[in-house]
Amino acid sequence: MNTHITTGVWCPTLTPLDAALDPDLRLLNAHLVWLLDQGCHGIVLFGTTGEANSFTVDERRRVLEGVLAAGFSPDRLIVGTGCCSAGDTASLTKHAIASGCPRVLVLPPFYYKGVSGQGTVDAYSREIEAVADARLRFFFYRIPQLSGVDITPGVIDALVERFGSQIAGLKDSSTDRESIEALCLRFGKRLDVLVGSERFLKRALECGASGCISATANVHAPVIRALFDDPTQAAQERATLARDAYETAPMIPALKAATARRTSDDGWSHVRPPLVATHPLGG
Amino acid sequence: MNTHITTGVWCPTLTPLDAALDPDLRLLNAHLVWLLDQGCHGIVLFGTTGEANSFTVDERRRVLEGVLAAGFSPDRLIVGTGCCSAGDTASLTKHAIASGCPRVLVLPPFYYKGVSGQGTVDAYSREIEAVADARLRFFFYRIPQLSGVDITPGVIDALVERFGSQIAGLKDSSTDRESIEALCLRFGKRLDVLVGSERFLKRALECGASGCISATANVHAPVIRALFDDPTQAAQERATLARDAYETAPMIPALKAATARRTSDDGWSHVRPPLVATHPLGG
Repeated sequence: MNTHITTGVWCPTLTPLDAALDPDLRLLNAHLVWLLDQGCHGIVLFGTTGEANSFTVDERRRVLEGVLAAGFSPDRLIVGTGCCSAGDTASLTKHAIASGCPRVLVLPPFYYKGVSGQGTVDAYSREIEAVADARLRFFFYRIPQLSGVDITPGVIDALVERFGSQIAGLKDSSTDRESIEALCLRFGKRLDVLVGSERFLKRALECGASGCISATANVHAPVIRALFDDPTQAAQERATLARDAYETAPMIPALKAATARRTSDDGWSHVRPPLVATHPLGG
Repeated sequence: MNTHITTGVWCPTLTPLDAALDPDLRLLNAHLVWLLDQGCHGIVLFGTTGEANSFTVDERRRVLEGVLAAGFSPDRLIVGTGCCSAGDTASLTKHAIASGCPRVLVLPPFYYKGVSGQGTVDAYSREIEAVADARLRFFFYRIPQLSGVDITPGVIDALVERFGSQIAGLKDSSTDRESIEALCLRFGKRLDVLVGSERFLKRALECGASGCISATANVHAPVIRALFDDPTQAAQERATLARDAYETAPMIPALKAATARRTSDDGWSHVRPPLVATHPLGG
Protein backbone atom coordinates (compact mmCIF):
# COMPACT_ATOMS: atom_id res chain seq x y z
CA MET A 1 0.00 0.00 0.00
CA ASN A 2 1.48 3.32 -1.03
CA THR A 3 0.44 5.96 1.43
CA HIS A 4 2.90 8.55 0.14
CA ILE A 5 1.71 12.14 0.03
CA THR A 6 4.87 14.16 -0.58
CA THR A 7 6.58 12.47 -3.49
CA GLY A 8 8.87 13.12 -6.40
CA VAL A 9 11.60 15.62 -7.03
CA TRP A 10 11.67 18.58 -4.67
CA CYS A 11 14.12 21.42 -5.06
CA PRO A 12 15.64 23.12 -2.01
CA THR A 13 15.79 26.46 -3.72
CA LEU A 14 18.77 28.76 -3.67
CA THR A 15 17.98 32.16 -2.16
CA PRO A 16 19.02 34.91 -4.57
CA LEU A 17 20.35 38.09 -2.97
CA ASP A 18 20.72 41.68 -4.05
CA ALA A 19 23.93 43.68 -3.73
CA ALA A 20 23.11 44.44 -0.06
CA LEU A 21 22.77 40.67 0.45
CA ASP A 22 19.05 40.97 1.10
CA PRO A 23 16.73 38.39 -0.49
CA ASP A 24 15.85 39.28 -4.08
CA LEU A 25 12.21 38.28 -4.41
CA ARG A 26 12.04 39.07 -8.10
CA LEU A 27 14.81 36.62 -8.91
CA LEU A 28 13.47 34.08 -6.43
CA ASN A 29 9.94 34.06 -7.77
CA ALA A 30 11.17 33.70 -11.35
CA HIS A 31 13.40 30.82 -10.25
CA LEU A 32 10.55 28.98 -8.55
CA VAL A 33 8.38 29.16 -11.67
CA TRP A 34 11.30 27.90 -13.74
CA LEU A 35 11.93 25.02 -11.35
CA LEU A 36 8.36 23.74 -11.64
CA ASP A 37 8.62 24.13 -15.39
CA GLN A 38 11.76 21.99 -15.26
CA GLY A 39 9.80 19.18 -13.69
CA CYS A 40 10.15 19.72 -9.94
CA HIS A 41 7.17 18.50 -7.97
CA GLY A 42 7.74 21.11 -5.32
CA ILE A 43 10.08 23.47 -3.55
CA VAL A 44 11.75 23.53 -0.17
CA LEU A 45 12.17 27.10 0.97
CA PHE A 46 15.05 27.68 3.42
CA GLY A 47 16.95 24.45 3.46
CA THR A 48 20.73 24.32 3.73
CA THR A 49 21.03 25.21 0.04
CA GLY A 50 18.83 28.24 0.64
CA GLU A 51 21.27 29.53 3.30
CA ALA A 52 18.40 29.34 5.79
CA ASN A 53 20.45 29.87 8.91
CA SER A 54 22.08 32.99 7.53
CA PHE A 55 18.72 34.80 7.77
CA THR A 56 16.81 36.15 10.74
CA VAL A 57 13.37 34.90 11.66
CA ASP A 58 11.85 38.10 10.26
CA GLU A 59 13.70 37.79 6.99
CA ARG A 60 12.52 34.20 6.60
CA ARG A 61 8.92 35.16 7.27
CA ARG A 62 9.06 37.98 4.72
CA VAL A 63 10.48 35.74 2.00
CA LEU A 64 7.72 33.16 2.46
CA GLU A 65 5.14 35.92 2.34
CA GLY A 66 6.72 37.30 -0.81
CA VAL A 67 6.65 33.92 -2.52
CA LEU A 68 3.00 33.35 -1.66
CA ALA A 69 2.06 36.90 -2.63
CA ALA A 70 3.49 36.17 -6.07
CA GLY A 71 0.94 33.38 -6.41
CA PHE A 72 3.07 30.34 -5.67
CA SER A 73 0.92 27.45 -4.42
CA PRO A 74 1.41 26.50 -0.77
CA ASP A 75 0.75 22.90 -1.85
CA ARG A 76 4.05 22.95 -3.66
CA LEU A 77 6.02 24.18 -0.64
CA ILE A 78 7.88 22.71 2.28
CA VAL A 79 9.28 25.41 4.57
CA GLY A 80 12.51 24.97 6.50
CA THR A 81 11.91 26.19 10.06
CA GLY A 82 14.48 24.54 12.30
CA CYS A 83 16.60 26.90 14.42
CA CYS A 84 18.77 26.47 17.50
CA SER A 85 16.16 27.98 19.77
CA ALA A 86 12.77 26.34 20.25
CA GLY A 87 11.14 29.76 20.26
CA ASP A 88 12.41 30.58 16.79
CA THR A 89 11.50 27.16 15.40
CA ALA A 90 7.99 27.36 16.83
CA SER A 91 7.54 30.91 15.60
CA LEU A 92 8.55 30.07 12.03
CA THR A 93 6.48 26.88 12.04
CA LYS A 94 3.35 28.66 13.25
CA HIS A 95 3.87 31.30 10.60
CA ALA A 96 4.24 28.67 7.86
CA ILE A 97 1.07 26.86 8.91
CA ALA A 98 -0.85 30.12 9.18
CA SER A 99 0.37 30.93 5.66
CA GLY A 100 -1.12 27.68 4.36
CA CYS A 101 2.10 25.67 4.41
CA PRO A 102 1.74 22.91 6.98
CA ARG A 103 4.78 21.01 5.68
CA VAL A 104 7.93 22.06 7.50
CA LEU A 105 11.46 20.68 7.42
CA VAL A 106 13.04 20.91 10.84
CA LEU A 107 16.70 20.78 11.76
CA PRO A 108 17.40 19.66 15.31
CA PRO A 109 19.03 22.35 17.50
CA PHE A 110 22.52 22.33 16.03
CA TYR A 111 24.87 24.17 18.36
CA TYR A 112 25.61 21.51 20.95
CA LYS A 113 27.31 18.38 19.66
CA GLY A 114 27.10 14.83 20.95
CA VAL A 115 23.64 15.40 22.40
CA SER A 116 21.64 12.34 23.37
CA GLY A 117 18.68 10.90 21.48
CA GLN A 118 16.57 11.87 24.49
CA GLY A 119 17.74 15.47 24.15
CA THR A 120 16.78 15.53 20.48
CA VAL A 121 13.37 14.01 21.25
CA ASP A 122 12.86 16.57 24.02
CA ALA A 123 13.82 19.46 21.74
CA TYR A 124 11.52 18.41 18.91
CA SER A 125 8.68 17.63 21.32
CA ARG A 126 8.92 21.02 22.94
CA GLU A 127 8.75 22.71 19.53
CA ILE A 128 5.77 20.66 18.34
CA GLU A 129 3.94 21.27 21.60
CA ALA A 130 4.58 24.99 21.29
CA VAL A 131 3.11 24.95 17.77
CA ALA A 132 0.08 22.99 19.03
CA ASP A 133 -1.60 22.68 15.64
CA ALA A 134 -3.01 19.39 14.31
CA ARG A 135 -2.48 20.60 10.76
CA LEU A 136 1.29 20.40 11.21
CA ARG A 137 3.14 18.07 8.82
CA PHE A 138 6.60 17.73 10.27
CA PHE A 139 9.65 16.47 8.37
CA PHE A 140 12.82 15.56 10.23
CA TYR A 141 15.97 17.03 8.68
CA ARG A 142 18.81 14.55 8.94
CA ILE A 143 22.09 16.20 8.00
CA PRO A 144 24.55 15.22 10.73
CA GLN A 145 27.57 16.44 8.77
CA LEU A 146 26.34 20.01 9.36
CA SER A 147 24.00 19.81 12.35
CA GLY A 148 26.26 17.52 14.36
CA VAL A 149 23.13 15.69 15.54
CA ASP A 150 21.85 12.46 14.07
CA ILE A 151 18.19 11.53 13.59
CA THR A 152 18.08 7.91 14.66
CA PRO A 153 15.26 5.36 14.30
CA GLY A 154 14.68 5.71 18.03
CA VAL A 155 14.17 9.47 17.73
CA ILE A 156 11.71 9.01 14.87
CA ASP A 157 9.80 6.26 16.69
CA ALA A 158 9.45 8.39 19.81
CA LEU A 159 8.07 11.38 17.91
CA VAL A 160 5.69 9.28 15.76
CA GLU A 161 4.44 7.60 18.91
CA ARG A 162 3.82 10.95 20.54
CA PHE A 163 2.53 13.09 17.67
CA GLY A 164 1.03 10.61 15.18
CA SER A 165 0.04 12.05 11.83
CA GLN A 166 1.72 15.37 12.57
CA ILE A 167 4.97 13.54 11.79
CA ALA A 168 4.95 13.36 8.00
CA GLY A 169 8.42 12.49 6.86
CA LEU A 170 12.18 12.68 6.81
CA LYS A 171 14.69 14.36 4.58
CA ASP A 172 17.84 12.28 4.77
CA SER A 173 20.82 14.35 3.64
CA SER A 174 23.37 12.16 5.31
CA THR A 175 25.90 10.63 2.98
CA ASP A 176 25.86 7.22 4.61
CA ARG A 177 24.29 4.86 2.08
CA GLU A 178 23.76 2.07 4.58
CA SER A 179 21.79 4.06 7.13
CA ILE A 180 19.82 5.86 4.40
CA GLU A 181 18.66 2.50 3.06
CA ALA A 182 17.87 1.26 6.55
CA LEU A 183 15.71 4.33 7.27
CA CYS A 184 13.88 3.98 3.91
CA LEU A 185 13.17 0.32 4.62
CA ARG A 186 12.03 0.98 8.17
CA PHE A 187 9.96 4.13 7.69
CA GLY A 188 9.16 4.26 3.94
CA LYS A 189 5.66 2.84 4.33
CA ARG A 190 4.71 5.04 7.25
CA LEU A 191 6.45 8.30 6.40
CA ASP A 192 7.55 10.15 3.30
CA VAL A 193 11.28 9.63 3.18
CA LEU A 194 13.06 11.94 0.75
CA VAL A 195 16.75 11.47 0.17
CA GLY A 196 19.06 14.45 -0.07
CA SER A 197 20.94 13.37 -3.17
CA GLU A 198 19.86 11.92 -6.50
CA ARG A 199 22.97 9.76 -6.17
CA PHE A 200 20.96 7.50 -3.88
CA LEU A 201 17.56 7.88 -5.56
CA LYS A 202 17.13 4.63 -7.49
CA ARG A 203 18.15 2.48 -4.56
CA ALA A 204 16.16 4.60 -2.11
CA LEU A 205 13.00 4.24 -4.19
CA GLU A 206 13.50 0.46 -4.16
CA CYS A 207 13.74 0.67 -0.37
CA GLY A 208 10.53 2.65 0.03
CA ALA A 209 11.54 6.31 -0.37
CA SER A 210 9.06 8.81 -1.78
CA GLY A 211 11.55 10.88 -3.73
CA CYS A 212 14.34 13.31 -3.17
CA ILE A 213 15.08 16.87 -2.12
CA SER A 214 18.27 17.65 -3.97
CA ALA A 215 20.28 20.87 -4.18
CA THR A 216 21.31 20.14 -7.75
CA ALA A 217 17.65 20.24 -8.82
CA ASN A 218 18.37 23.98 -8.90
CA VAL A 219 20.37 23.39 -12.08
CA HIS A 220 19.42 20.04 -13.58
CA ALA A 221 15.95 19.02 -12.41
CA PRO A 222 15.02 17.26 -15.69
CA VAL A 223 17.66 14.57 -15.30
CA ILE A 224 16.51 13.90 -11.73
CA ARG A 225 12.87 13.90 -12.77
CA ALA A 226 13.63 11.38 -15.52
CA LEU A 227 15.28 9.15 -12.92
CA PHE A 228 12.30 9.44 -10.59
CA ASP A 229 9.80 8.68 -13.36
CA ASP A 230 11.75 5.70 -14.67
CA PRO A 231 14.40 4.61 -12.20
CA THR A 232 16.59 2.55 -14.50
CA GLN A 233 20.29 2.02 -13.98
CA ALA A 234 21.02 4.16 -17.03
CA ALA A 235 18.91 7.01 -15.65
CA GLN A 236 20.72 6.72 -12.32
CA GLU A 237 24.07 6.91 -14.03
CA ARG A 238 23.06 10.01 -16.00
CA ALA A 239 21.84 11.73 -12.83
CA THR A 240 24.94 10.79 -10.86
CA LEU A 241 27.18 12.10 -13.62
CA ALA A 242 25.31 15.41 -13.71
CA ARG A 243 25.67 15.76 -9.95
CA ASP A 244 29.37 14.93 -9.86
CA ALA A 245 30.37 18.30 -11.30
CA TYR A 246 28.85 20.11 -8.33
CA GLU A 247 30.47 18.00 -5.66
CA THR A 248 34.00 19.14 -6.48
CA ALA A 249 33.51 22.75 -5.29
CA PRO A 250 31.60 24.47 -2.46
CA MET A 251 28.18 23.58 -3.77
CA ILE A 252 26.00 26.57 -2.94
CA PRO A 253 28.27 29.21 -4.54
CA ALA A 254 28.75 26.87 -7.51
CA LEU A 255 24.99 26.46 -7.99
CA LYS A 256 24.49 30.20 -7.74
CA ALA A 257 27.28 30.87 -10.21
CA ALA A 258 25.73 28.37 -12.62
CA THR A 259 22.37 30.10 -12.26
CA ALA A 260 24.01 33.49 -12.85
CA ARG A 261 25.44 32.11 -16.09
CA ARG A 262 22.14 30.55 -17.17
CA THR A 263 20.12 33.69 -16.53
CA SER A 264 22.88 36.15 -17.49
CA ASP A 265 22.13 37.88 -14.21
CA ASP A 266 25.17 38.50 -12.01
CA GLY A 267 22.85 39.23 -9.10
CA TRP A 268 22.54 35.49 -8.71
CA SER A 269 26.17 35.15 -7.69
CA HIS A 270 25.81 36.82 -4.27
CA VAL A 271 26.03 34.63 -1.18
CA ARG A 272 25.89 35.55 2.47
CA PRO A 273 29.05 35.08 4.51
CA PRO A 274 30.41 32.70 5.75
CA LEU A 275 29.95 31.38 2.21
CA VAL A 276 32.18 33.00 -0.39
CA ALA A 277 31.00 33.71 -3.92
CA THR A 278 32.48 31.94 -6.89
CA HIS A 279 32.97 34.31 -9.79
CA PRO A 280 29.90 33.74 -11.96
CA LEU A 281 31.83 33.80 -15.21
CA GLY A 282 34.69 31.73 -13.85
CA GLY A 283 35.35 28.02 -14.40
CA MET B 1 54.08 46.87 28.85
CA ASN B 2 50.81 45.46 30.06
CA THR B 3 48.00 46.89 28.00
CA HIS B 4 45.44 44.42 29.30
CA ILE B 5 41.98 45.77 30.04
CA THR B 6 39.84 42.69 30.52
CA THR B 7 41.74 40.49 32.91
CA GLY B 8 41.32 37.84 35.54
CA VAL B 9 38.73 35.19 36.16
CA TRP B 10 35.49 35.63 34.27
CA CYS B 11 32.56 33.31 34.72
CA PRO B 12 30.35 32.35 31.77
CA THR B 13 27.27 32.15 33.90
CA LEU B 14 24.76 29.35 33.78
CA THR B 15 21.27 30.53 32.87
CA PRO B 16 18.79 29.31 35.49
CA LEU B 17 15.34 28.41 34.20
CA ASP B 18 11.90 28.10 35.71
CA ALA B 19 9.63 25.09 35.25
CA ALA B 20 8.47 26.44 31.88
CA LEU B 21 12.15 26.65 30.91
CA ASP B 22 12.04 30.43 30.79
CA PRO B 23 14.98 32.36 32.29
CA ASP B 24 14.64 32.76 36.04
CA LEU B 25 15.95 36.24 36.71
CA ARG B 26 15.66 35.96 40.46
CA LEU B 27 17.99 32.96 40.55
CA LEU B 28 20.28 34.49 37.94
CA ASN B 29 20.74 37.78 39.72
CA ALA B 30 21.46 36.02 43.01
CA HIS B 31 24.01 33.81 41.24
CA LEU B 32 25.82 36.78 39.70
CA VAL B 33 26.20 38.49 43.06
CA TRP B 34 27.50 35.24 44.54
CA LEU B 35 30.00 34.80 41.68
CA LEU B 36 31.56 38.22 42.29
CA ASP B 37 31.64 37.43 45.96
CA GLN B 38 33.52 34.23 45.14
CA GLY B 39 36.22 36.26 43.43
CA CYS B 40 35.18 36.45 39.79
CA HIS B 41 36.36 39.63 38.09
CA GLY B 42 33.38 39.57 35.77
CA ILE B 43 30.64 37.64 34.05
CA VAL B 44 30.00 36.47 30.52
CA LEU B 45 26.28 36.43 29.87
CA PHE B 46 25.18 33.96 27.18
CA GLY B 47 28.20 31.90 26.41
CA THR B 48 28.02 28.20 25.63
CA THR B 49 27.61 27.43 29.34
CA GLY B 50 24.69 29.86 29.46
CA GLU B 51 22.89 27.91 26.72
CA ALA B 52 22.96 31.08 24.63
CA ASN B 53 21.88 29.53 21.37
CA SER B 54 18.85 27.89 22.96
CA PHE B 55 17.30 31.35 23.43
CA THR B 56 15.72 33.74 20.96
CA VAL B 57 17.08 37.21 20.33
CA ASP B 58 14.22 38.69 22.35
CA GLU B 59 14.82 36.37 25.28
CA ARG B 60 18.50 37.28 25.31
CA ARG B 61 17.72 40.99 25.27
CA ARG B 62 15.30 40.65 28.14
CA VAL B 63 17.76 38.73 30.31
CA LEU B 64 20.44 41.37 29.84
CA GLU B 65 17.93 44.07 30.70
CA GLY B 66 16.85 42.13 33.79
CA VAL B 67 20.44 41.77 34.99
CA LEU B 68 21.16 45.48 34.55
CA ALA B 69 17.85 46.47 36.13
CA ALA B 70 18.92 44.51 39.22
CA GLY B 71 21.91 46.83 39.49
CA PHE B 72 24.67 44.66 38.07
CA SER B 73 27.51 46.80 36.73
CA PRO B 74 27.93 46.78 32.93
CA ASP B 75 31.68 47.09 33.56
CA ARG B 76 31.61 43.56 34.91
CA LEU B 77 29.85 42.09 31.86
CA ILE B 78 30.78 40.60 28.53
CA VAL B 79 27.71 39.70 26.48
CA GLY B 80 27.64 36.75 24.09
CA THR B 81 26.00 37.93 20.88
CA GLY B 82 27.14 35.59 18.08
CA CYS B 83 24.37 33.94 16.08
CA CYS B 84 24.22 32.20 12.70
CA SER B 85 22.64 35.19 11.02
CA ALA B 86 24.44 38.52 10.76
CA GLY B 87 21.18 40.33 11.46
CA ASP B 88 20.73 38.62 14.82
CA THR B 89 24.37 39.14 15.81
CA ALA B 90 24.26 42.82 14.91
CA SER B 91 20.94 43.29 16.67
CA LEU B 92 22.17 41.73 19.92
CA THR B 93 25.47 43.60 19.73
CA LYS B 94 23.79 46.97 19.21
CA HIS B 95 21.49 46.21 22.13
CA ALA B 96 24.43 45.32 24.38
CA ILE B 97 26.32 48.50 23.51
CA ALA B 98 23.21 50.63 23.96
CA SER B 99 22.78 48.97 27.37
CA GLY B 100 26.27 50.07 28.39
CA CYS B 101 28.01 46.78 27.63
CA PRO B 102 30.42 47.35 24.75
CA ARG B 103 32.25 44.06 25.36
CA VAL B 104 30.73 41.27 23.32
CA LEU B 105 31.85 37.69 22.74
CA VAL B 106 31.02 36.63 19.21
CA LEU B 107 30.77 33.12 17.79
CA PRO B 108 31.35 32.86 14.07
CA PRO B 109 28.27 31.73 12.09
CA PHE B 110 28.23 28.06 13.06
CA TYR B 111 25.93 26.16 10.72
CA TYR B 112 28.15 25.66 7.71
CA LYS B 113 31.29 23.62 8.29
CA GLY B 114 34.63 23.81 6.56
CA VAL B 115 34.13 27.45 5.67
CA SER B 116 37.18 29.40 4.55
CA GLY B 117 39.08 31.97 6.59
CA GLN B 118 37.89 34.54 4.08
CA GLY B 119 34.27 33.54 4.74
CA THR B 120 34.79 33.98 8.49
CA VAL B 121 36.44 37.37 7.98
CA ASP B 122 33.58 38.41 5.67
CA ALA B 123 30.97 37.30 8.19
CA TYR B 124 32.55 39.10 11.13
CA SER B 125 33.22 42.22 9.04
CA ARG B 126 29.63 42.41 7.89
CA GLU B 127 28.42 42.19 11.50
CA ILE B 128 30.85 44.84 12.77
CA GLU B 129 29.94 47.15 9.90
CA ALA B 130 26.26 46.68 10.66
CA VAL B 131 26.88 47.62 14.30
CA ALA B 132 28.86 50.69 13.19
CA ASP B 133 29.75 51.87 16.68
CA ALA B 134 33.28 52.88 17.69
CA ARG B 135 32.50 51.92 21.30
CA LEU B 136 32.39 48.24 20.32
CA ARG B 137 34.87 45.95 22.10
CA PHE B 138 34.74 42.72 20.16
CA PHE B 139 36.01 39.36 21.46
CA PHE B 140 36.43 36.43 19.08
CA TYR B 141 34.94 33.20 20.38
CA ARG B 142 37.13 30.28 19.39
CA ILE B 143 35.37 27.00 20.12
CA PRO B 144 35.80 24.91 16.97
CA GLN B 145 34.62 21.71 18.65
CA LEU B 146 31.11 23.20 18.75
CA SER B 147 31.08 25.93 16.10
CA GLY B 148 32.91 23.86 13.50
CA VAL B 149 34.78 27.01 12.51
CA ASP B 150 38.28 27.90 13.67
CA ILE B 151 39.54 31.38 14.49
CA THR B 152 43.00 31.44 12.94
CA PRO B 153 45.76 34.03 13.32
CA GLY B 154 44.96 35.14 9.77
CA VAL B 155 41.33 35.81 10.68
CA ILE B 156 42.37 37.82 13.74
CA ASP B 157 44.98 39.80 11.82
CA ALA B 158 42.47 40.71 9.11
CA LEU B 159 39.89 41.98 11.58
CA VAL B 160 42.42 43.91 13.70
CA GLU B 161 43.76 45.49 10.53
CA ARG B 162 40.28 46.53 9.49
CA PHE B 163 38.66 47.52 12.79
CA GLY B 164 41.56 48.52 15.05
CA SER B 165 40.64 49.11 18.67
CA GLN B 166 37.14 47.74 18.21
CA ILE B 167 38.81 44.30 18.30
CA ALA B 168 39.47 43.77 21.98
CA GLY B 169 40.22 40.13 22.52
CA LEU B 170 39.76 36.43 22.10
CA LYS B 171 38.22 33.72 24.18
CA ASP B 172 39.99 30.51 23.30
CA SER B 173 37.88 27.53 24.29
CA SER B 174 39.61 25.12 22.00
CA THR B 175 41.24 22.20 23.73
CA ASP B 176 44.41 22.28 21.67
CA ARG B 177 47.18 23.35 24.02
CA GLU B 178 49.65 24.05 21.25
CA SER B 179 47.49 26.48 19.28
CA ILE B 180 46.25 28.15 22.48
CA GLU B 181 49.83 28.90 23.49
CA ALA B 182 50.64 30.11 19.99
CA LEU B 183 47.69 32.52 20.01
CA CYS B 184 48.60 33.82 23.49
CA LEU B 185 52.18 34.44 22.37
CA ARG B 186 51.15 36.09 19.13
CA PHE B 187 48.27 38.26 20.33
CA GLY B 188 48.68 38.51 24.12
CA LYS B 189 50.30 41.95 23.99
CA ARG B 190 47.82 43.44 21.57
CA LEU B 191 44.58 41.79 22.64
CA ASP B 192 43.07 40.37 25.81
CA VAL B 193 43.32 36.63 25.35
CA LEU B 194 41.24 34.67 27.83
CA VAL B 195 41.49 30.90 27.84
CA GLY B 196 38.39 28.75 28.18
CA SER B 197 39.73 26.39 30.82
CA GLU B 198 41.69 26.91 34.01
CA ARG B 199 43.53 23.74 32.98
CA PHE B 200 45.62 25.95 30.67
CA LEU B 201 45.72 29.09 32.84
CA LYS B 202 49.22 29.04 34.34
CA ARG B 203 50.88 28.33 31.02
CA ALA B 204 48.61 30.76 29.18
CA LEU B 205 49.49 33.57 31.59
CA GLU B 206 53.17 32.85 30.97
CA CYS B 207 52.46 33.17 27.24
CA GLY B 208 50.68 36.51 27.57
CA ALA B 209 47.06 35.66 28.32
CA SER B 210 44.95 38.07 30.39
CA GLY B 211 42.99 35.46 32.26
CA CYS B 212 40.29 32.90 31.68
CA ILE B 213 36.58 32.53 31.06
CA SER B 214 35.82 29.16 32.56
CA ALA B 215 32.52 27.32 32.95
CA THR B 216 33.61 25.77 36.21
CA ALA B 217 33.95 29.22 37.76
CA ASN B 218 30.21 28.71 38.30
CA VAL B 219 31.07 26.24 41.05
CA HIS B 220 34.65 26.79 42.19
CA ALA B 221 35.74 30.33 41.35
CA PRO B 222 38.00 30.69 44.42
CA VAL B 223 40.41 27.98 43.33
CA ILE B 224 40.68 29.59 39.87
CA ARG B 225 41.09 33.03 41.38
CA ALA B 226 43.88 31.74 43.62
CA LEU B 227 45.62 30.35 40.55
CA PHE B 228 45.25 33.65 38.69
CA ASP B 229 46.55 35.68 41.63
CA ASP B 230 49.52 33.40 42.24
CA PRO B 231 50.08 31.05 39.32
CA THR B 232 52.24 28.46 40.98
CA GLN B 233 52.42 24.86 39.91
CA ALA B 234 50.64 23.81 43.10
CA ALA B 235 47.80 26.25 42.43
CA GLN B 236 47.53 24.93 38.88
CA GLU B 237 47.31 21.38 40.15
CA ARG B 238 44.58 22.28 42.63
CA ALA B 239 42.55 24.04 39.93
CA THR B 240 42.99 21.21 37.46
CA LEU B 241 41.90 18.67 40.05
CA ALA B 242 38.77 20.69 40.86
CA ARG B 243 37.91 20.89 37.17
CA ASP B 244 38.44 17.21 36.46
CA ALA B 245 35.23 16.20 38.23
CA TYR B 246 33.15 18.22 35.77
CA GLU B 247 34.75 16.89 32.64
CA THR B 248 33.48 13.36 33.12
CA ALA B 249 29.80 14.20 32.55
CA PRO B 250 27.88 16.58 30.26
CA MET B 251 29.19 19.72 31.89
CA ILE B 252 26.28 22.17 31.79
CA PRO B 253 23.72 19.85 33.43
CA ALA B 254 26.37 18.82 35.96
CA LEU B 255 27.13 22.44 36.85
CA LYS B 256 23.43 23.20 37.21
CA ALA B 257 22.89 20.12 39.36
CA ALA B 258 25.79 21.17 41.58
CA THR B 259 24.30 24.64 41.92
CA ALA B 260 20.91 23.13 42.76
CA ARG B 261 22.59 21.18 45.57
CA ARG B 262 24.52 24.20 46.82
CA THR B 263 21.47 26.46 46.90
CA SER B 264 18.97 23.73 47.84
CA ASP B 265 16.87 25.05 44.96
CA ASP B 266 15.74 22.40 42.49
CA GLY B 267 14.81 25.15 40.03
CA TRP B 268 18.48 25.28 39.19
CA SER B 269 18.41 21.82 37.65
CA HIS B 270 16.34 22.76 34.57
CA VAL B 271 18.09 22.85 31.20
CA ARG B 272 16.70 23.57 27.78
CA PRO B 273 16.68 20.70 25.28
CA PRO B 274 18.73 19.40 23.55
CA LEU B 275 20.54 19.26 26.91
CA VAL B 276 19.12 16.78 29.38
CA ALA B 277 18.96 17.49 33.09
CA THR B 278 20.97 15.52 35.59
CA HIS B 279 18.99 14.79 38.72
CA PRO B 280 20.10 17.49 41.18
CA LEU B 281 20.29 15.13 44.12
CA GLY B 282 21.96 12.37 42.16
CA GLY B 283 25.66 11.47 42.05
